[in-house]
Formats: sequence, structure tokens, C-alpha cells
Amino acid sequence: MANLELMRELSVETPSKIVMLVADGLGGLPGPDGLSELETAHLPNLHQLAAESITGLIQHVPAGLTPGSGPGHLALFGYDPLVFDIGRGVLEALGIDFDLQPGDLAARGNFCTVDEAGRITDRRAGRIPTALNVELCAELRAKVRLDGVETFIEPVEGYRFALVLRGPGLAEGLTETDPQREGVVPFEVAARRPEAQQAARLANHFIAQARAVLKDKRPANMVMLRGFANKPPIPPMHEVYRLRTAAVAVYPMYRGLAKLAGMDVFEGGKTFSDELEVTRKIWQDYDFIYLHYKWADSAGEDGDFAGKVVRLEELDAAIPAVRAMKPDVLMVTGDHATPAVLKAHSWHPVPFLLNAPWRYPDDVRAFTERDCRNGELGRFPATDVMPLAMAHAMKLTKFGA
Amino acid sequence: MANLELMRELSVETPSKIVMLVADGLGGLPGPDGLSELETAHLPNLHQLAAESITGLIQHVPAGLTPGSGPGHLALFGYDPLVFDIGRGVLEALGIDFDLQPGDLAARGNFCTVDEAGRITDRRAGRIPTALNVELCAELRAKVRLDGVETFIEPVEGYRFALVLRGPGLAEGLTETDPQREGVVPFEVAARRPEAQQAARLANHFIAQARAVLKDKRPANMVMLRGFANKPPIPPMHEVYRLRTAAVAVYPMYRGLAKLAGMDVFEGGKTFSDELEVTRKIWQDYDFIYLHYKWADSAGEDGDFAGKVVRLEELDAAIPAVRAMKPDVLMVTGDHATPAVLKAHSWHPVPFLLNAPWRYPDDVRAFTERDCRNGELGRFPATDVMPLAMAHAMKLTKFGA
Repeated sequence: MANLELMRELSVETPSKIVMLVADGLGGLPGPDGLSELETAHLPNLHQLAAESITGLIQHVPAGLTPGSGPGHLALFGYDPLVFDIGRGVLEALGIDFDLQPGDLAARGNFCTVDEAGRITDRRAGRIPTALNVELCAELRAKVRLDGVETFIEPVEGYRFALVLRGPGLAEGLTETDPQREGVVPFEVAARRPEAQQAARLANHFIAQARAVLKDKRPANMVMLRGFANKPPIPPMHEVYRLRTAAVAVYPMYRGLAKLAGMDVFEGGKTFSDELEVTRKIWQDYDFIYLHYKWADSAGEDGDFAGKVVRLEELDAAIPAVRAMKPDVLMVTGDHATPAVLKAHSWHPVPFLLNAPWRYPDDVRAFTERDCRNGELGRFPATDVMPLAMAHAMKLTKFGA
Repeated sequence: MANLELMRELSVETPSKIVMLVADGLGGLPGPDGLSELETAHLPNLHQLAAESITGLIQHVPAGLTPGSGPGHLALFGYDPLVFDIGRGVLEALGIDFDLQPGDLAARGNFCTVDEAGRITDRRAGRIPTALNVELCAELRAKVRLDGVETFIEPVEGYRFALVLRGPGLAEGLTETDPQREGVVPFEVAARRPEAQQAARLANHFIAQARAVLKDKRPANMVMLRGFANKPPIPPMHEVYRLRTAAVAVYPMYRGLAKLAGMDVFEGGKTFSDELEVTRKIWQDYDFIYLHYKWADSAGEDGDFAGKVVRLEELDAAIPAVRAMKPDVLMVTGDHATPAVLKAHSWHPVPFLLNAPWRYPDDVRAFTERDCRNGELGRFPATDVMPLAMAHAMKLTKFGA
């Protein structure tokens, strides 16, 4: 919190504009010929931008830890991810564009199959199609009633759904019902602290009613719940930094993360070009725009080295359009590394660049992991990104007399 | 503690193996011809290993502070040495391989000489030989009895011995009895906090009885006590990291430090070759092995620049044998610098290398202070070493969703 208090104290409104372009899973590792995805790709615009910028490598969470997308983004937005925790249930709700409110309690739900004695025979209900999930959620929504709270039951994908309870006194701190194996009866929800007792009672009521509604269905005749979490109490960016903040993203989860940080969110269409189109439209109304480029991560997660290279080249081709909007501060970075060779997020630090008139020039001429290591900013924590952006946008007053 | 809690949450058991090779006093300073010990030595194996590793410079304690062996090692094992304090009494007990238990209170003892009025005439009792020390400790052990606690009186060397009290309610927070000058009567032990009152009373009983036992001896006719400390409550590494941990060291103090961290400890024989022999024998039973190489420090402490160079070359010659065991993660570093030109530990950061398949390669080709400064890891705190080792051993799950 200390840094956020400082920012709140020192930030001033000015007309300058900041763009934070987050290329999801940007960082990589060398492939078979010894070069990383960034080193392999043809990136004339990003390299030119790096040459005109200060650069570094950022770490979103402590050394060695691999950040999920939640902690990765929160850190970029200036929130210490060890302080502000995004539970799995909250992320599930964000991923379907659900509009979480303060005090909401969210959980991730699974449809599953149980036998007559209530023992789990399939934890994923034979991986039912999403269409059946949608039907079952509608039926649950119509029939389940919990005292004193609003209940939202929203299909996600396959056998997964999101449950959100809204009402007073719904505290997190609940155990999960999924025993993580078959042949046993699901657990009851229990409170791990006294404040969570009411929520535990309601969650168990939900499960009992859902079981009654589903009892003659096949294969999805039961539900399990896990990852109960409240919407985290994140002070909105517009209050902390006195910025008018907007997010443009194609995928709902990233709009959801931006919404947690208090940003106005805009659907980005289907492509990055669509996102830029939206950005141009809202340009005059905002001082800070977070732009999300998803596709580098997708290719990395698939282990598709060549595909990630192509996605990075597509990003590169869009850089002139971003620069044409003339942001006063333009940053390009990632929320975590997704090396294609690992097919997963990783703990490696991620290239970062910041372009602005009053940067201290460094000697880095290419936007790669190895080059950015030698940049002006060195290896630094992602929670420094927002203060650096604010400084270079001339939006911070002096600290101390 | 925050980091340890995180590690406890994210660590998973896998078959991969980690070796941490600590060359005591590894770092140095340039000698008369402008090169450090590491730069002067012929180290083909270490330089080759560095070329295949990520490198950096580690700092065990805050900038400018010179770590003792205790804080240096604790930091490498992942424990913040500003949080986990190893008192002098505890270090004295560890140095003689004493098996400290939770709740034990340890102190460093000196035999001294007093006159008939009880005034100190020699704070070190004329530096009596160890053989006499052993005799006196045996006599004290036979005759001193303290109510409700077990009393261990163990010779160390010359005029020094260790006192350990074992029993309920023995809290640290005691003043010392050594007035640090002659011509005055030793102080009584006093409690600096209420919880330590019982321990203070017992310590004073010990001194009174020891004085009675020793009163006709010459020159060691009295004892002084200092550095009272409890065994620090360090959560064991096997719980924090879910690792089967072992230490192999020739010198007892380092086995003692490893024991504090919960490792199984093995006597390393007399040489580093002996240590490697032991390591090969226990290889299958452990996931993490800490190997201690003492001799670089010994030469540094003696101010023997050429000797330290030779000791580093001997370490280098053993590197192929270490690599032949095929650890998944191999780290080489030190617990502090011991520049021969200073004849003492120093505050300078210490070279570090980590070899593992999923490292991000850097351009460093030599294992020296100046080269490692340009490594992938830059200058970083030693408490990051264990998380980095765990990450590269693929033993950490993702942080946050």
C-alpha cells in the first residue's frame, strides 16, 4: 500500500497521455537454433522503438515465481500481487465478463457425475459440451433460491461454470468441495474463519438444491465448488493516479482484470486492428489506455515457436499505428513470459520499453530478452512501471521539499 | 516469512535434483597486479560451467554489511538473516557439532582469572591450553547442578567453552557478564525482558557454582558468559520446499548451520574428494545437497593470496566430478567474500552461477567478480537463490491464476 499512498499524494492531472501495450506471454526462451522468439522474429518497428526508448527486464512477482495472468497484470497496474490476491473464483467470473461488485463472493463450479451413494464417478461429468452446460445453468438459475442473497449461475465452458453470490456478509475463507479424486463423496463447504460461516452455510444450501435439481440428469448430476473468493478491494487507478483510465481487449478476462483496477473497459473486437480502431475512438476521453495483445501467449502455450514468431511480427506491424496516435508515454511489455519450448508461463523476466521525451537514453537497439537486460532500467519489479510512466508523463510532483 | 509461506504453498515434489556448492569466502579483491584471486587462478572448468549457466552477483545481507558465516548461509538456504538471527552462543555450539534442540539456550563461555576480591586479572585465563579446558569442563560437568534443566558444558578451544541449558521456559534476552576490561568484578546476568528472568537466575546459579568448583584452580578460576541465544525457530527446508535435504561438510559449524535449516548432515571426511565420495553414496536419497568447500576462506583469512588461488584451482579440478553426478540444477557460489588483501570477510557481493536446462543464457564466459556482474541475474539478494533453484528444477507451481 505504501507506494499507492505515495502515488495518490504526488499524482497530478495533466493533458499528457500514456499507452501501456501488454503483449501477453511476450518473453520466451531460445529455441533449437539458440535464439528466442523475439530474437528470431523480424521486428523492425519494435527494434526502432526500443532504440528510441529506455529498456529493461521486469519481474512481476518475486524471483523464481511464475505469475498467472492475474498477478502479472496487477503488478503492471501498480498493485503488489502479494498484497492483492485474485482468487480462482474471481478470475473465472472475470473470464466471462461478469460484472463483479464489491462484496461479491465468486466460486468456480464443475459439473460432475455421482453414483447413487453420492460418490464421484467422473469429476468432469464426461466433459459435457458447453451447450448442455448452458441449459443446466439456466435450469439451476430458475430453481435454486438462497435466503438473503442474489445468486448468479453462469456457464463458462465444457463442464465449468461460475457461481457468484451477492449480498451482505459474504466473506471468503471457505474450503473446497472437490476431493480431487473419484470414488468418494464430495466434501461439504466449511468456513476456515468465523466470518465465513454464513457463506459456508449458503454454499452448502446451493449444493443441496443443485443436487436435487440435477438428480435425474446424466451425466451431469452434481456440482462441485472451489476457489471461493471475494472481489479484492483494489483502490481504483483513477483515484490513485488521477488518470482517466481505459482498457481495450478482445478477451473478457483481461477486461475483467482492468475492471478490477477501476478502468473503463472496451471490447476490442476480434483483432488487434479492431482494438486500435476502438482506441482511436476513445482517444480524447482518456489519459491512460491499456491495450492487450493476446496472441503471443496463445502460440507460446501451444508450444508453437514459429507461430509465436509470426504473432510477434504481426504485433510489430501494428506499432506504427500505435505511434501515430502520439502518446506522450508509450510502453510495451508483457504480463509474463510464455516460452514456446515450455508450453507454459514461466518465471523468466520480461522485456520492457518506455518511450517518452525525457527518458535517459540507453544503448539498447533491439527489443529482445538479451538486449533489454542491458537497458537503463536493468532488472526491476513490475510495480515500478506505473510510477515510471507517471514520471515520464510529467504527472508526478516532487516528493518532499 | 512471506517468501517462505509462498514457497510452502507453491513447491511440489519432483525427481529433479539440486546441488548447491558453497565455496566459503569465494569472492575476493584485486591483488598487487590488479586481478582478483578468481581472475588470477586457472579455472577452466568453472569458466566453462559459467559459460553454460546464468550468472550474477549475490548479496547475502543489505548493501555494505559484511556477513558472518551464519547469516551468509541462512540467506543461501532462503532464510532472511535479518529475521532469523543466530546468536553467538548458538554458533559456538554448532561449531562443536552440538545437537541443539528447540528451546535450548546456548552461551559462549570463557575461562578467566580473578583475584581474591573477584576482580578480573586476565579475561582469557592466560590462554590456557585446550587440554586443561577439557579437564575443567569435565569437572564442572560432574559438580554443577541446576534445578529443572539439563546442563551441557562443552570445551571448544583454548579458554573457550560452550554452555547449553535445556529445559522449559529458557528464553533469550540476557545481558553478558564480561565487562570487556580487567580490574573489575564480572557482571551478574540480568534479564532484558520478563520472559528471560528464569534463564537469568539459572545462569547466575551456574556462575556461582562454577566459581566454587574452580576457586582453587590457577589460572582458570572463574568463568564469564556471553552471547546467550535460543536455537532460532527456523522452519525446516524439507517442509518449506518439500525437498529431501542433505548437507556434506568437513567442518562441524557448517553441518550445524545445515542442521538448523533441518537438513540431514553428513561428515565430509577431510577433503573435498571425501565430500564427493559421501555425496555419491547418498545421491539417490536426496533432492537437494549442500556441499561445503572450506579452503578458499581459510587462505583468504590468512591473507595468503597465492594460497587462495591454489585452493580455487583445486576446487576447479573437482568440478567435473560434481557435474558427472548430473544434478538437474547445479549452483556454485560463496557465503561471503574473503579477499586475501583484507584477511577477513568483506561486504562485497559474491559470484553466483546456476546451471540448468531452462535458464535464459547470458553472455558471461568466466566465473569472476567482474564477469558475473554482467550476468542474467545482475546483483541480487541471496534469499532469491532457493526460489530460482526451485524454479529451474521445475519444482514450483504457478503463482495466482
